[in-house]
Amino acid sequence: MPYTKTDELAINTIRTLAIDATSKANSGHPGAPMGMAPVAHVLFNKFMTFNPKNPEWVNRDRFVLSNGHGCMLQYALLHLFGYDVTMDDLKNFRQVDSITPGHPESHDTPGIEVTTGPLGQGFANAVGLAIAQQHTAAVFNKPGYDLINNHTYVFFGDGCAMEGVASEAASTAGHLQLGNLIAIYDDNHISIDGDTKCAFTEDVMKRFEAYGWHTQHVEDGDHDLEAIEEAIRKAKEVKDKPSVIKLTTTIGFGSKLAGTGGVHGNPLKADDAKQAKEKFGFDPEKSFVVPQEVYDMYHKHAAEGAAAEQEWNQLFEKYGKEFPDLHKDLARRLTRDLPEGWQNKLPTYKPTDPAVASRKLSETVLEAIHDVIPELLSGSADLTGSNNTRWKNAVDFQPPNLGIGDWTGRYLRYGVREHAMAAIMNGLSAYGTIIPAGGTFLNFVSYAAGAVRLSSLSHQRVIYVATHDSIGLGEDGPTHQPIETLAHFRALPNMMVWRPADGNETSAAYYMALTSKSTPSILALTRQNLPQLEGSTIEKAIKGGYVVLENKDAQITLVSTGSEVSLCLEAVKTLKEQGITARVASLPCVEVFDVQDKEYKLSVIPDGIPALSVEVMSTLGWEKYSHEQFGLNRFGASGPYKEVYKKFEFTPEGIAKRAVATIDFYKDVKPLRSPLNRAFQQLI
Amino acid sequence: MPYTKTDELAINTIRTLAIDATSKANSGHPGAPMGMAPVAHVLFNKFMTFNPKNPEWVNRDRFVLSNGHGCMLQYALLHLFGYDVTMDDLKNFRQVDSITPGHPESHDTPGIEVTTGPLGQGFANAVGLAIAQQHTAAVFNKPGYDLINNHTYVFFGDGCAMEGVASEAASTAGHLQLGNLIAIYDDNHISIDGDTKCAFTEDVMKRFEAYGWHTQHVEDGDHDLEAIEEAIRKAKEVKDKPSVIKLTTTIGFGSKLAGTGGVHGNPLKADDAKQAKEKFGFDPEKSFVVPQEVYDMYHKHAAEGAAAEQEWNQLFEKYGKEFPDLHKDLARRLTRDLPEGWQNKLPTYKPTDPAVASRKLSETVLEAIHDVIPELLSGSADLTGSNNTRWKNAVDFQPPNLGIGDWTGRYLRYGVREHAMAAIMNGLSAYGTIIPAGGTFLNFVSYAAGAVRLSSLSHQRVIYVATHDSIGLGEDGPTHQPIETLAHFRALPNMMVWRPADGNETSAAYYMALTSKSTPSILALTRQNLPQLEGSTIEKAIKGGYVVLENKDAQITLVSTGSEVSLCLEAVKTLKEQGITARVASLPCVEVFDVQDKEYKLSVIPDGIPALSVEVMSTLGWEKYSHEQFGLNRFGASGPYKEVYKKFEFTPEGIAKRAVATIDFYKDVKPLRSPLNRAFQQLI
Repeated sequence: MPYTKTDELAINTIRTLAIDATSKANSGHPGAPMGMAPVAHVLFNKFMTFNPKNPEWVNRDRFVLSNGHGCMLQYALLHLFGYDVTMDDLKNFRQVDSITPGHPESHDTPGIEVTTGPLGQGFANAVGLAIAQQHTAAVFNKPGYDLINNHTYVFFGDGCAMEGVASEAASTAGHLQLGNLIAIYDDNHISIDGDTKCAFTEDVMKRFEAYGWHTQHVEDGDHDLEAIEEAIRKAKEVKDKPSVIKLTTTIGFGSKLAGTGGVHGNPLKADDAKQAKEKFGFDPEKSFVVPQEVYDMYHKHAAEGAAAEQEWNQLFEKYGKEFPDLHKDLARRLTRDLPEGWQNKLPTYKPTDPAVASRKLSETVLEAIHDVIPELLSGSADLTGSNNTRWKNAVDFQPPNLGIGDWTGRYLRYGVREHAMAAIMNGLSAYGTIIPAGGTFLNFVSYAAGAVRLSSLSHQRVIYVATHDSIGLGEDGPTHQPIETLAHFRALPNMMVWRPADGNETSAAYYMALTSKSTPSILALTRQNLPQLEGSTIEKAIKGGYVVLENKDAQITLVSTGSEVSLCLEAVKTLKEQGITARVASLPCVEVFDVQDKEYKLSVIPDGIPALSVEVMSTLGWEKYSHEQFGLNRFGASGPYKEVYKKFEFTPEGIAKRAVATIDFYKDVKPLRSPLNRAFQQLI
Repeated sequence: MPYTKTDELAINTIRTLAIDATSKANSGHPGAPMGMAPVAHVLFNKFMTFNPKNPEWVNRDRFVLSNGHGCMLQYALLHLFGYDVTMDDLKNFRQVDSITPGHPESHDTPGIEVTTGPLGQGFANAVGLAIAQQHTAAVFNKPGYDLINNHTYVFFGDGCAMEGVASEAASTAGHLQLGNLIAIYDDNHISIDGDTKCAFTEDVMKRFEAYGWHTQHVEDGDHDLEAIEEAIRKAKEVKDKPSVIKLTTTIGFGSKLAGTGGVHGNPLKADDAKQAKEKFGFDPEKSFVVPQEVYDMYHKHAAEGAAAEQEWNQLFEKYGKEFPDLHKDLARRLTRDLPEGWQNKLPTYKPTDPAVASRKLSETVLEAIHDVIPELLSGSADLTGSNNTRWKNAVDFQPPNLGIGDWTGRYLRYGVREHAMAAIMNGLSAYGTIIPAGGTFLNFVSYAAGAVRLSSLSHQRVIYVATHDSIGLGEDGPTHQPIETLAHFRALPNMMVWRPADGNETSAAYYMALTSKSTPSILALTRQNLPQLEGSTIEKAIKGGYVVLENKDAQITLVSTGSEVSLCLEAVKTLKEQGITARVASLPCVEVFDVQDKEYKLSVIPDGIPALSVEVMSTLGWEKYSHEQFGLNRFGASGPYKEVYKKFEFTPEGIAKRAVATIDFYKDVKPLRSPLNRAFQQLI
């Protein structure tokens, strides 16, 4: 069907809404929405299938705005198509407690798939969404039941194209031959510093070709709707490669500052806004105007989407009769509940069981549960043998033509791409049918910090399997030994940082990570062996903190995590020889411990005696749980791990010495309160 | 000169040393050294100019082993050429307190230029070293005085090639047309997960071409020394592009496991080591053997390097007569001292001066000092207008043929590449003639965490200009508002985190950042305006903490940083209305405050009254300086910043309320000690 005046009107409606919302907020980015309105219109109205009344429909096409600063584009579309984003929401753009924040947040706004804005992230999320589609289709589709066949579309700009996380993800997508992924590169030659000539002169399409992508170029992205349509159509026909369309556009199209950096991140001046509206055929004196024919056109498309969902629901019902188990599995996954009784598979340990590294204990968990939790998709950033993330007989998720796996595979080889791994996992989780777990060394979770933060902010159930969690990794040395890492992620809201001390605690960590539907987890695991503790159980550990060794007459509480808990138990014996009585608390996850009731918490770290924390890394933050802190506020050392521990006095004697000093120091303080007693509550 | 048996012997000596050192340590990576020994031999012995007796000679060729796990290659070379790395040091490979740690650390080992191992970093460091050479040459070279003309060589493997930081840096290097940079890609098809086929099937050379690099391929990197030499020679001839040579090699060449992942990260088994030695013509029963002719050959080359330095010294002396000012400048830069009296240029402020955002105050500092500190090279990751990192009339560092700057330029447009910016700055600093400062939003310093950590570990004087430092950035919202960031970097050893409260504190932050020769700094700066405080001076602020408002009868100390200090001063007035007396301490840099003497510190946060910390982000770590903490342990909100502050009760009333609760809570505790009193000293 040829494009009409109504199409043009729709495009200009999007543009004027972006002008009006940024002007009213006196803040925001009109440039990208004005430049990308044509492609957005063609994509949403001609290609995408979705039902605004049910943004959660699993087989909807996914759209990601990786250049998230252009979010007025997306908010305008959501409103116009009839998502639960009202005109008032647009008028509240960038206001406190609105659902239209400065960058799109999936947890806040219906129709936003993933949280974007930090550049490069959305692009990598889209790769995750595409992987999830490919995998879910392979698992569930059957002849006659093409249940899962959606596409993932992503817009990205020069900023995203420059970010390493997007490069990593693009290389991954090319390797994986993701034919269901279509990226549109807004080639407007402008970033915040002005012309991209000043920093970005590479041949982007050639680079994507090198990654194995199909590439096209649409030269007039401002006007040539037919060419845009044709390019997207071609991209959909390419089944064995991801596609990228370079779309040359004019940033801030219609503004007097069109094509310049001046229109990137600032609202249009009043006179500019007026002339633009006139140019677009809108009344320059009116704001937030939507012509009825635009609503009509978009609502018609939305209705088609609703009908498509209806049809899908019928197909799914029919599928249920033919494939009841698969039907049940998919239906369950969409609730994000785990299969009933899965937790009975979690391994438990007795003190007489052998000492095992917690990275191996983690492997044992994965081995035990992967059958009962089919949505678990594990992987590693090229450290499979070190992270122990792969269960025996796992199938790799790979394009079948490589001969090393297939699309049903549940093990992802991310390559040495930690940041993309994390961002891809955010996309996998956002798709709704997968729980991703991905491994790297704890120290290199920091490479992924930008995406890890978004796991938390966007409430994704993502599991970071972070092995080699301390100087205990030994010979690799300070470049690989985390010092600041746990403090970093403990300071991150909505993140569970687990550092289990033994097998039961490792099972507890997985229990919490898997059952917390909207909180990601970092599991900090050892390279070195850990004894099975007397007094640890899954039930105790899932409280985040508990008493490992009680003693009613204790003069001090040793508060510890992971590999140092058993060291503290040794230190108790050393102290006993000196006539000093101590008790030990294990705090595998302070975030979970924090939300227990106060009485319980005070039973773990009580009033009346001092507490000494023992963790072989930065002490930062331990003051919250202890009166004194024994840690490592310097970089580590390269050597056999026992030597390294000794160098830094992480021995029973080193701990005992500090316990004695702590008892002595606090003997005159009355009342000596547990550090858990606070003068006021924190805002949460 | 054709290659002889001695060349082969030298190559096999490197290989056997790598076998022996990893075997003795029972740890380490023999594969890369065995595979890359031929190219290392050709490069070091035929092309590189250096004087092992003076590893600091400024015009030496730079070598970076980006695949730093192969460090036995580098340690062997350093030993063989006569650097201060003894045979005993090789025997102590990966042992505590050795100078041959598990990955190369520049601060520990003579001849190591930059600290590598975390993949991708070395590649980006090399880009920094090459930029530094290009810039230093442009500033100091004169007709007849080609003082600075060294090359930078970098080895990298598949792991580095997959990392986003290396992609970002490669794109930057291509844009900058760095003809002095030669990279050698160890194309051995093996990473830790095995064959690169499982995750990395892109066309790497085509990608580098897309970035604007000159590319070559040497097909037999195991044997074809002539082809290696020819390729490096050609690469040196290319003056207007960086060069990459894809070198196909066999990992662990000579081992029974050659060409497999089995030889990547594990020592050879005893029988394998023996057969390899026999194959190489070495006595299988002996270890750590260096034939005298190998020492002779390498020492001869080292002597040539020493002579080259001698010649250079004479040239430099002569240069001094013709260009005394430039001579003095370069000589001074090499001491890392700043020009005398530079600090008099630092702006100072009176309380009557207008309120200004600290990002603007930072700009004022740069404007004031850039003339007197010519080694200062500023830049931004595409946020120039927001970070305020560019002084008026700054010249961009750009290839002259782009027409937008030249090689003498002192402003670097890093593009939207935060991670590469940080890693490039590490290289710039390591070169020895430059102090780099680079801007991004504080939240996106996290994207660069991998490189920031190495700024600290490798003692680089790098300045991170981190603006938009809190929810005070307002409308951009939670995706851009740091919560965990300062806790993260405060937990990082050897990092100064500054959060100045006004103009004098901003000047103090720059004073410390510029004069701390082996400590990097993060300057957390506001978007919003800050009043000039009564009672702030540069002298007080350079202590890291001081009393802004004293009151002998105070019932509480409010401890704060940055934008919240003036808020605390307002809160004092609110408290006064309630009959409560408070004092205020500003702690712009806790790391600097920590090293003041105890008496001084206790004068700032004294015994006897409680302290309440106030900082509008994670409270993690503030327990060290206060009894109670007011902060934000959740994500922020999108809206005008005053509204956002109000939402989270960061108002004089909100602070006063918590101060009252704090006073009340601690009124019965005797003695009430300052939190600065500790039971024992931390190891440092």
